[in-house]
Parts: sequence; C-alpha cells; structure tokens
Amino acid sequence: MGMIGGGPGAFIGEVHRKAARLDGGIELVGGAFDIDPQKSKQMGKQLHLNPARVYSDYKEMIAAEQKLPEGERMDFVSVCTPNNWHYPMAKDLLEAGFHVMCEKPMTISVDEAKSLVQIVEKTKRVFGLMHNYTGYPMVKLAREMVKKGQIGNVRKIVVQYPQGWLATPLEKSGNQQASWRTDPKQSGGSGCGGDIGTHAENLAEYITGLKMTHLSAELTTFVEGRKVDDDVNCLVKYDNGARGVLHASQISVGEENDLAIWIYGEKGGLEWHQEHPNYLYVKWLDKPEQVFKRGNPYVAAYSPAAGRATRLPSGHPEAFIEAMANIYLNFADTVRANLLNQTPDPLALDFPTVYDGLRGMQFLATLLDSANSEQKWTAFKK
Amino acid sequence: MGMIGGGPGAFIGEVHRKAARLDGGIELVGGAFDIDPQKSKQMGKQLHLNPARVYSDYKEMIAAEQKLPEGERMDFVSVCTPNNWHYPMAKDLLEAGFHVMCEKPMTISVDEAKSLVQIVEKTKRVFGLMHNYTGYPMVKLAREMVKKGQIGNVRKIVVQYPQGWLATPLEKSGNQQASWRTDPKQSGGSGCGGDIGTHAENLAEYITGLKMTHLSAELTTFVEGRKVDDDVNCLVKYDNGARGVLHASQISVGEENDLAIWIYGEKGGLEWHQEHPNYLYVKWLDKPEQVFKRGNPYVAAYSPAAGRATRLPSGHPEAFIEAMANIYLNFADTVRANLLNQTPDPLALDFPTVYDGLRGMQFLATLLDSANSEQKWTAFKK
Amino acid sequence: MGMIGGGPGAFIGEVHRKAARLDGGIELVGGAFDIDPQKSKQMGKQLHLNPARVYSDYKEMIAAEQKLPEGERMDFVSVCTPNNWHYPMAKDLLEAGFHVMCEKPMTISVDEAKSLVQIVEKTKRVFGLMHNYTGYPMVKLAREMVKKGQIGNVRKIVVQYPQGWLATPLEKSGNQQASWRTDPKQSGGSGCGGDIGTHAENLAEYITGLKMTHLSAELTTFVEGRKVDDDVNCLVKYDNGARGVLHASQISVGEENDLAIWIYGEKGGLEWHQEHPNYLYVKWLDKPEQVFKRGNPYVAAYSPAAGRATRLPSGHPEAFIEAMANIYLNFADTVRANLLNQTPDPLALDFPTVYDGLRGMQFLATLLDSANSEQKWTAFKK
Amino acid sequence: MGMIGGGPGAFIGEVHRKAARLDGGIELVGGAFDIDPQKSKQMGKQLHLNPARVYSDYKEMIAAEQKLPEGERMDFVSVCTPNNWHYPMAKDLLEAGFHVMCEKPMTISVDEAKSLVQIVEKTKRVFGLMHNYTGYPMVKLAREMVKKGQIGNVRKIVVQYPQGWLATPLEKSGNQQASWRTDPKQSGGSGCGGDIGTHAENLAEYITGLKMTHLSAELTTFVEGRKVDDDVNCLVKYDNGARGVLHASQISVGEENDLAIWIYGEKGGLEWHQEHPNYLYVKWLDKPEQVFKRGNPYVAAYSPAAGRATRLPSGHPEAFIEAMANIYLNFADTVRANLLNQTPDPLALDFPTVYDGLRGMQFLATLLDSANSEQKWTAFKK
Repeated sequence: MGMIGGGPGAFIGEVHRKAARLDGGIELVGGAFDIDPQKSKQMGKQLHLNPARVYSDYKEMIAAEQKLPEGERMDFVSVCTPNNWHYPMAKDLLEAGFHVMCEKPMTISVDEAKSLVQIVEKTKRVFGLMHNYTGYPMVKLAREMVKKGQIGNVRKIVVQYPQGWLATPLEKSGNQQASWRTDPKQSGGSGCGGDIGTHAENLAEYITGLKMTHLSAELTTFVEGRKVDDDVNCLVKYDNGARGVLHASQISVGEENDLAIWIYGEKGGLEWHQEHPNYLYVKWLDKPEQVFKRGNPYVAAYSPAAGRATRLPSGHPEAFIEAMANIYLNFADTVRANLLNQTPDPLALDFPTVYDGLRGMQFLATLLDSANSEQKWTAFKK
Repeated sequence: MGMIGGGPGAFIGEVHRKAARLDGGIELVGGAFDIDPQKSKQMGKQLHLNPARVYSDYKEMIAAEQKLPEGERMDFVSVCTPNNWHYPMAKDLLEAGFHVMCEKPMTISVDEAKSLVQIVEKTKRVFGLMHNYTGYPMVKLAREMVKKGQIGNVRKIVVQYPQGWLATPLEKSGNQQASWRTDPKQSGGSGCGGDIGTHAENLAEYITGLKMTHLSAELTTFVEGRKVDDDVNCLVKYDNGARGVLHASQISVGEENDLAIWIYGEKGGLEWHQEHPNYLYVKWLDKPEQVFKRGNPYVAAYSPAAGRATRLPSGHPEAFIEAMANIYLNFADTVRANLLNQTPDPLALDFPTVYDGLRGMQFLATLLDSANSEQKWTAFKK
Repeated sequence: MGMIGGGPGAFIGEVHRKAARLDGGIELVGGAFDIDPQKSKQMGKQLHLNPARVYSDYKEMIAAEQKLPEGERMDFVSVCTPNNWHYPMAKDLLEAGFHVMCEKPMTISVDEAKSLVQIVEKTKRVFGLMHNYTGYPMVKLAREMVKKGQIGNVRKIVVQYPQGWLATPLEKSGNQQASWRTDPKQSGGSGCGGDIGTHAENLAEYITGLKMTHLSAELTTFVEGRKVDDDVNCLVKYDNGARGVLHASQISVGEENDLAIWIYGEKGGLEWHQEHPNYLYVKWLDKPEQVFKRGNPYVAAYSPAAGRATRLPSGHPEAFIEAMANIYLNFADTVRANLLNQTPDPLALDFPTVYDGLRGMQFLATLLDSANSEQKWTAFKK
Repeated sequence: MGMIGGGPGAFIGEVHRKAARLDGGIELVGGAFDIDPQKSKQMGKQLHLNPARVYSDYKEMIAAEQKLPEGERMDFVSVCTPNNWHYPMAKDLLEAGFHVMCEKPMTISVDEAKSLVQIVEKTKRVFGLMHNYTGYPMVKLAREMVKKGQIGNVRKIVVQYPQGWLATPLEKSGNQQASWRTDPKQSGGSGCGGDIGTHAENLAEYITGLKMTHLSAELTTFVEGRKVDDDVNCLVKYDNGARGVLHASQISVGEENDLAIWIYGEKGGLEWHQEHPNYLYVKWLDKPEQVFKRGNPYVAAYSPAAGRATRLPSGHPEAFIEAMANIYLNFADTVRANLLNQTPDPLALDFPTVYDGLRGMQFLATLLDSANSEQKWTAFKK
C-alpha cells in the first residue's frame, strides 16, 4: 500500500493508516504525503518508511513504483487529498496499473465521476471508495434485514448528519480542515452537502438498496462570508415510492458526528446511530422493540457480512477505525484475489465502489440544482 | 367545568378529565358526552355526576346551564369531540357566555378559525386550546432559554412527530380513534398533518417565538384506501431566516409518540423528547453538554413558568397528564380571575389560545396547498 | 377519604391527594392536616373543604367522623405524617372502624408493626401501605414475567436507590423534609435505610416473590453531625438461594430518585428504572434484548395487572403520580367492595398491605442489627 | 515485539496484536504462539512472520532471541497465555533481559506477585500489565477530576462488571475461553473474581487514587458442577473512609461487558460505562449534569493524559482496541526511552505496572479469604 496525502496536520490520512494497519494484512510501504516535499519526507520518517519510497510528488511516485517488479511495488494506493485532487490522481494511478482506494467524495463533478467509471471499467483495476460508515457491522445487519424482507416494503427513510464544528467561521482562524472544506475549488460546489450529506445519501441507499429519484433541497450558508453551504435540508423520493427526509448540518452547535438513520417498512422499523454504532434498534408492529448488539452469535448467523466485519465479542465496543478497517479488509482481499488471479470471496466484494462514487456526485449535482430551482422536485441527475 | 364529548370509548376526553381533576381546583359538574344520549347518560353515571346535568345534546346543555345562576352554572366547557364539531360548539358556547377549552386542531378550516378569533374577541370569553405538549415544564424552560438569548439567534430547527399506529388500515377494523381521524369530513383535510403535524408546528413556534413563513411539503398516503395523508415531510423557513425540517408520520412502525425537537442557535443547541419529558439537553460551542432535569431549583430559578408547572421534586417523573394539567391550571386561573374581575397572574396566561389555533389552521392550509403545488415554497396562509 | 398530615409545606400529602383525585373515584372530604390547628384550617380552606370537617387534631377527627352516618363519614383515612405517628394513628383509626391508607415505613419498630398486623386482622379493615413504586405498570409486568417463569429461577438481584439531596447538612438549614427524616425519633432508627432502603427491599421482593433471609449491611453517616445513616450498602441472601446487592444513598451527589433493579434468572434478565418507568428491558441468553413499552397491547395481554394500571396509550408517558394512583385505585376498589359486602376483583387486591409493612420493619431491624454486628450475615428478624 | 500465546482460537492475543499494530510504532517480529508447536507455526504463517522467529516453545524463543544482537532481537515480549503461565514466563523473560507486557491477572498467587515485583525491581526491565480499561481517555479524565478535587473528598464508589456468557455450563461444550477460565489450576482460585472482578478493583483504585482496605465478600457458583465462583458481591472500605460496593458476575444473563463505575464525592459525582466509553457523566450539587465527550478540546485541555490517549475527533467513536492501544503506546514509549537511555515522557508512564498486578492478586486473595470467613470484614492482604 502507498498513500497520497495524509501529511503532517491532515486528519483522514492517519485514520486510513490506522485502519489499514489494524488487521495485519496491509503494509504501508511508501507515499507522497504532502504537496510540500519536505513535509512528505517528514511524514515518511515519522512512519519509519524507507526514504527511497517517500516521494515529493505523486507523479514521481507513480513513475518510480511502476519500475519496481510486481510483488515489490505498491499493490494499491490510497488517495487522501482534498476533493479536487481525487480525480486526476485516481485516473493516473489506474492508468498506471495501480489499484486505488479513494476518499470520498470521489470527484468534484459528475463528469469526472463518469470518466472515472469508464477508466475503472477499462483498466479493470480494483477501485474502493472510503464511504466508511457502511463498514459498520450493524449497518450490514440492517441491510440484510431489509434485503430479506424483515421490515417489509420500505415506506419512509429519515437520515441525518448533524455537526456543529463549523458554527463559527473557523476557516478564518487557519484551521486546515475547515479551510479546504469551505473553499469551493477544493471541496466541489457544495460544502456541507459534499462533506457529509453524501454520507447520509450513501448510507440510505446502501442499507435499503433503494435509489433516490427526486430531491427537493434547501442549501443554506449561515456563517457570514462562507462560500459554500453549511446546512442542508432535503425531501427525497425513492424508486419504490418511499419518501423521506435527509438533513445535514455543520452549524448544529454541540452535535459531533450524529449520522443516524430511521427506516420504516410495512412490517418493521430500523434505527441506527453512528455515535453508538454497536446497536441496531428493530421495531415491530405489535411486539417489543429489539436491540441487536454487535458481536452476538445471532448477528453473524443472520448476516455473514456483519459477522465478517466483527473482531471483538459483544460488549467490547468497536468503533470508527474498525469500520474503516472493514472497508480496507474487503478491498484488500479483493485486490489480493486480483493479484493472484483468484475469484474473491463474495463477501469481500462488500465495499463502496466507483459506482457509489458516481451516485454521490449525481446526488451533489442534484442537490445543487434543486437548491437553485423554484420547482419542488428535481429529478436525480444521470 | 362541563364537557362535550369524551363518552364511552373516547380517548382524549377522559385524559382531559384526569388532567382537570389533578390539582383539585376544577370540578366536572356535567356534560353532553356522546351524540348517543344513552351513552352520554352512561358516562355521567360512571362519573358520579348529577343526572340532571348530564345532557343528551350540547345545545340542550347550553340552554339548561345558561338558566342556572352564575356560580352554579358551568364556569367553562371543554370541547373534546372530533375536529369538525369544534367550531360550531365553541361558537355556541362562547356566544352563550361560557369560557371554552377546546381540543386541537381548533377547527377544520382557516375561515372557521378566523371566525372564532372574532367571536373570542367580541365575547371576551377565555378560550384555551389543548396543545398539551407546551404544558411540559422543560418545554417552558427551553422557551425561556431562547427568549433570554442563551443559544443566540436561532438558525435551524428539526421537529418531528413519528407514530406507527396507523401503519395498517386500522380504520377498517372498527377502531374508533382511527376511524374519525382518517375520515376527511371529521378530521379536516389532512390526517397526519392535522392530528400530529400541528403539534410539531406549535411546539417549534412556542419554544422559539419564531413564525413559519414558507413550507415545502410532501404529504403521502401509504396505506391503501386511506382517504387522508398518513405521512408528512416538510421543509420550513422561519421569519428570522432560520431553516428547518418538520416531519410527522403515522406509519413509522414501532414509534409511539416520539415528538421531539432540536433547535440550534449561534451559540447553543437545545434538544427535547416528549417520551422523556423531564430532561432538556443543552449543547454549547466549546463546553460539555448539560442535562437540565425537571424539579431542580436551578430550573425554577431560571424559568418561573417551568417552576409553576412542576409538582414533584426531581427524579420523581412527571408526564403527559401533568403537562395537560398545567394547561388546565393556567387556563382555569385565568377563567377564575375573569369571573372575579381580577387581573390574572401573568404566568397564568401561558396557555395556548385562539391565535395558536388560527396558526394551526393556517399551517394545515399551507401544508395542503404546498403538497399540491409544484413550486418549492408556499407562503404561509394568512 | 380523609387525611391526617399533608399540611402546608408537606410534600407527600399533596401527592397523595393528587393521586387519589386522578381517576375521579375518590373524594377528599376532610382531614386533620397539621399538628398546628391553624395550619390545618388553612389547608382545608386551600382545598375547598367543608370547614366543619377540617379538624385540629386527629383524635377529634375520629370522634366527629364516627358520629356521621355510614355513607357520609370518611370511608377511609390516609396517614401522611412523619413515621413515628403512623402506628398510633393507624391503630386508632382501625379500631374506630376506618379503613386506612398509610405512608411507609409503616411504623418505627417491628413490635409496632406486629401489633398493627394483629389489629388489622382483628378489625378486618382494609389497610393499604403506600409503597408507591409497586404501582408502576412495568413493575407489575416484571413480576408477572418472573411468576410465569420467563426468566427461570432467579439467581441474582441488584437493587439500588441513590439520591444526593442530603449530601450537605440540609437539616441544619431548616428544610422540613430533611429535618424529620434525619431525626431518629421521627424517622425510626435508620435514616437512608428507612426512607428509601425499604423501597428497594419492597421492590425486589414484590417483583421476584422471593424473601430476603440474610443481610450483611454497612450503614454510614457521611455528613458530620447527622444522627442517622445517610448511606446503605448491603449484601443479600434470598430464600431460593439467590444472591444480591442492595444499596441506597442520600449522599450520591447528582442522583435524584434513581431506584432501579436488575434481576437475573437462569434464562433471562430484567431491568427497570424508576426515572424512566415506562420501559422494561428484558434480556435473553441468545436473543436480542427486548424493550417492553407501557401501553402496548402486548403488555396488557401478558399482564392484566399491568393493563389495569395503565391509563394512556404507549408513548404518552405515565409517571410517579399515576403509579401512586394505581395503589389508590386498587385500595379504593377493595374498600368499596368491603363497604358493599362484595368480593373484590382479584386484581384490585394488588396493593401493599400490613404484611409488606411488617417486612419493611423487619428489614430495617435486620439492617441495623447487621450494621452493628461483626458477623458477616444476620438472619432476617422475625 | 514478540508474543507468547495468542495461537489459533485464542481471543486476547489477537486483540493485543491489533492494539499493538494500530499506531504503527510497534512491530511483531516473532513468538511462541501455542503450546502445540504446529499451531504456533500455523499462527506465524498467518501473521506473515519470518518462520525462523516462530518458536515451538517460549524457552526456545528466549534462548534464540537472546543471541540476536540488540536492535534486532525482540525489544519486548507480550504474555497472552492462561493465567497460570504468566509468572514463570514473565520471570524468565525479565531475567533474560526482555521488557514484558503481561495479560492480567498478573499471577495466580500473592507470593508469585511479590516475587515478580522483586524481579522487576532487580532487573530494571519495563513491565506493563494489560488492565486495558484504564486506557480509555474518559477514565483518564475522571482520574484527573478526582485528583484535582473537582468532586471533593470521595465518599462512595459503586463499581460493577456484569457478564452473562457463563450463565450455562459453556465449559462443558468445549468452549476454549470458558474451559481455562473455569479451571482453578489455570485461572487461579477465583473464576469471576479473577477474570473480571480485578478489572473493577483496578478501575476504582485507578480513578480515585484510593486503596481498598477491607472487603466483605460473597462468592457464589450458580452453574452446577462449576469449580470456581461465577458471581461476586462485595462491600468495600477505602483508605480515606469511603465506602462502596463491587459486584461482578458471569451469570447475569444478557449482560455483555457492562463494566461501569459511579463515584460520589462531597461536591460532585462521576459516572462511566465501558460499553459507551466516549462519555463521562459529571454531576453536581446544584447545577445540571454535564456530559463530557471524548475528543473535544475541553477534554485534552483539562487532562493531557486523556488528550494523549485520543486519536479521533469527537463524535467519531473510539473503543476497546484503542484503549488497549493506549496502554501499548505508553508502554512502548517507555520501553523505547529505556532502550535509548532517555527519560520517558511523564505521560508515557501512565500504564499499569507490576504494583497494580500485586494489588490485583492481593484483592483476589482477600476476596477468597473474606468469602470463606464468617467475619464481616477482612483486611486487605499484604
């Protein structure tokens, strides 16, 4: 594994590294960690890497690694840069023959996303997208329950992602995380929508298997001088006739990462909260609510995907890094199968792909269009 | 106190009676409890009432009670019938000189509501509307916090009222509560919106002091054959620029009465849940979340209205009936002052009035219009 | 209904009145509300009572009411005074032919309690003891589950009642509630044990049907100068071999009335919290935890006693006053049957009696003995 | 890093490996993973280790690694075997010059523990004990609050560790985890007490800085045929006069790993739950409860130890593996300083040591003595 981005001061790159390390099956061998070559070197040193494989520049990295014999060169590369770099980097990597794990949102436009789909299809490389929340075991259990018809035909979905950390103009104080996220050039056109609204979209579609068909969106910028939205409220129509609400916010003071979803079918309901990820609440028409708890045999028995995504027995909580490690685990097993010309375990294919990335970009484009439209409903972009 | 409605099998009438009884300051002396005179008699007997004051018909009741000398006749009458009867009954009562407590929604049209405003203003009778959720002490504390600027200018409001009890066609099985609520003639044009959506609207406006200015609504009927909506999803604009979401449902399987609200200002956030009403969660930009608990001295010291609405020390929970009793307490104290030609305690004036009822009807009219419109935003009806 | 105690400034008397009023079947007609006759009169006026039936003294009350014809005189009397008055008042009332509802703890000694048992048996009057927490519907459901063997043979019981209100020497600041509770003459020998430890004991024995056989207790007084214990920690043996812990405290800063119980059998576990009384958590060996919620049809179907104790549909919370009203409801129905020479509904007999009161006093005597003993186990007093 | 134990089917060894890997500063280079040499080899292969450093036997490992030059040989070895092997292995490792991380309980007798203290003191090697729960950041915050006097002098401590997984005779079904834990020879004399009671003891002493001085314990074996206790109930006296309860169980059906603690001082209270480890509840005499949430700047500002133990921003939950990784992080930094002849960062010294292990063994010895004693109090063993 190699990495682009994740230099000193970056947040998500180090989380990727921890997640990739956790299970012992992936080794980081090098990277181009910062656009400042000095900082890249500094990070390489910090990571005890061979200095020869710590690069000043991702293009240099691709060129050098390509020359290494197969088996020695990086088997895949993780892209952990600001959003605007995802597309060109992923493109170059794929075309140079590398498998790619990419942070989300995948690109900054639908066109880029469509192009990337084509490149993945053409190069036949394994492409993973880090929609990490779908790595949680109880999310996988929820998905299985919907798929098996436990809650009946889905009617209503409420999904939210409130945060409060951008309630003040943090980007003006030099905060690196805030700065690029509120810069439309680096983040894409939407701030809150692109950063966390897409997680809500992805979670809803992943669990239910449904597709959004229409949005009615209101994007607001509450913090004066900010160039992108910091609050999203949205009505949603799904392809089976289900209705719902999606709301996300970066100005909801006191909220941290309260991604949560409520799904109601004809026969039952499901509720899950990212901040308490080990529990899935299952509700019924005429029976007591049930609390499914990660790590119990009844979870793995019902959902092998949830079982595979579980490391610890029940009551020893697992959390964010483990969820991300689950994405890496499945992605890496698929890469490994590819390298060995084997058929991957079907369960290993459960990680977000380039098609999820395209959905995300279409969601964002639809969100922005709808926000600018006086029409109530805007059809999902194709 | 007299009562119209609340006969055998009715739900809310008996709750009114319990709430009115609780504090010992209100005595039920008679009523017309059912459109079936036999059932009215039966209820009177069950309530140990003087049979002479148990009437077959509300018009008969008005006529008979008017003849009694002041001090003996009913001081006020509670109207607990299906929605379509609220207006004619309240009108007749007010014009006959009675003070009136009315269940919500106040009427079944904006025109009726406006007419009732005029009648109240002309007759100068005390008119209370049973928006019971604003009777909870922690709701009053929340209101005081917003009013005093503790959380700063409000930016975002999420308010919800999910229920699941109408997820199946319960009205076809003879359930009395389900039947009239799903009959557009008795309930008004909206089912879920009128029954519980209005509670969400009232709660948001009561706590924040803001007014909704625009709605973007989607009303859905999920249960086949049902004549009214059973699910409401709605974007909202408020008069200070705040944005929000309001959603309510009667098909959210497993939910009971999960009315809840999240309010985010520039400096803080508030969260309250009707099913756990003794707690108010208060969130800050850079300090730990606080859990305000009903009954503590710090609550009453901050909000005399919350203190007045509290009967038990902290940790001995109060709940739904007590909240309704708080509405009755303030209403009855105001009626009492009126009867004695005194100025009521300003805190006693804290109960929902005919103007809240008008707002509710305007909300419903706007909701229905918006649901039928292809425009994203529909301005609040006047 | 008449009342002794519950004058101005008293806490529990007014709660009794509210609970007795709630359902409309009980009318307070008079009382002796305070040892200060002026204050008794004042309370009578406040309660809109006939001044002729507001007495200066409970003996005067008994004498006067006895002279009234049956049907007019008080059917029963509630004793809501400090603990040391319970016995003489209950005795006089019973011997004068009145049915009695008595606050807990029933007396201040085992001898008094045994004497009261004899008096009740001799006079054949209905005697109710206000162990209010057993009035909660979900407590009744829990009891039914244990009785029907749902969780198997009980092995372990953890029961707690932490409060924090006496963490400082509140009794020195003139607080009326604190003063008599910390005066050994008025409260009996134990402070925390008598005031709230008994609730924990009663709850454990009520739900499980088991009897404590041995205690190993540690009573502590943390607040300097206090004459009674303010903290109780206790190991418990039950008559079926079950083991457990009982702890109670008045110095657990920040706790309010967090009475809670966890019961583990061979096949399942139960958990209930007084501060969130509408939920019963049921745990299983190899199935997801279930959350039983008050007001649902599945509760009443399983436990008619729980169903009878329920006024509101699920999700409209009931709380402390309703629980106490359930004790009054059953007690009053039994009194009524007695007055009419009828056999009471078996479900109406579900209220705490003089035998529960005796158990409570035996518990306290055992607790005090064990606290003074160097032996680990002290057998339950007989 | 090398490892003894943690072969195929073992639980805790792989968790150690994940925790050690997480931050990238520790590399597993070899081990003796199983008493069956074949299984040890198998595990080494699975871990992609150099076969030359996968040993059949821990003595062979010590001998071989000692011959490697410093810098190449294992810097420290983790002992993850059943309890009875801890002492001889740790002894041999320390005397051969290796630093040691040892699973808990440290030994199976006080004598062994005392001997190990002497060996550590003599060899001056770094010895870490895996009492992982003290690695949670909010535990460290709680400790700092007590130390700084925020809650005043501690009066009462309730600590619990209920589990339900041994409610049936699981050891008879061949479950490896159950088998050695219920074999007195492998586990030491106490089952539940040694496996999880010690965690409760360690947590209480770590947070409060107090020492237990007396126990009054009841150990019970509920499952027929089991040779060790499966339930522990215990009264506790602390060296500052505080009182408390400690209870642990393996037969509390439905409980998973609900280690939790409530600490009450003169001015405030603290509450923490291992299954929701990111929150610390802080309670006050006359102010609202506060919820401190891991990852917020106010946590790190108050407690640098908690800050150092935090990887992710607030709302992205951390859990069990991260807590264990925190122990490894501090231990490894201390080992590193030792190898480099540097003074370790004082914060790095925050990990459980041989003295905590001795406390644990003394606790177990006292627990067993008290359980066999008819005296209420047994003084803590020395």
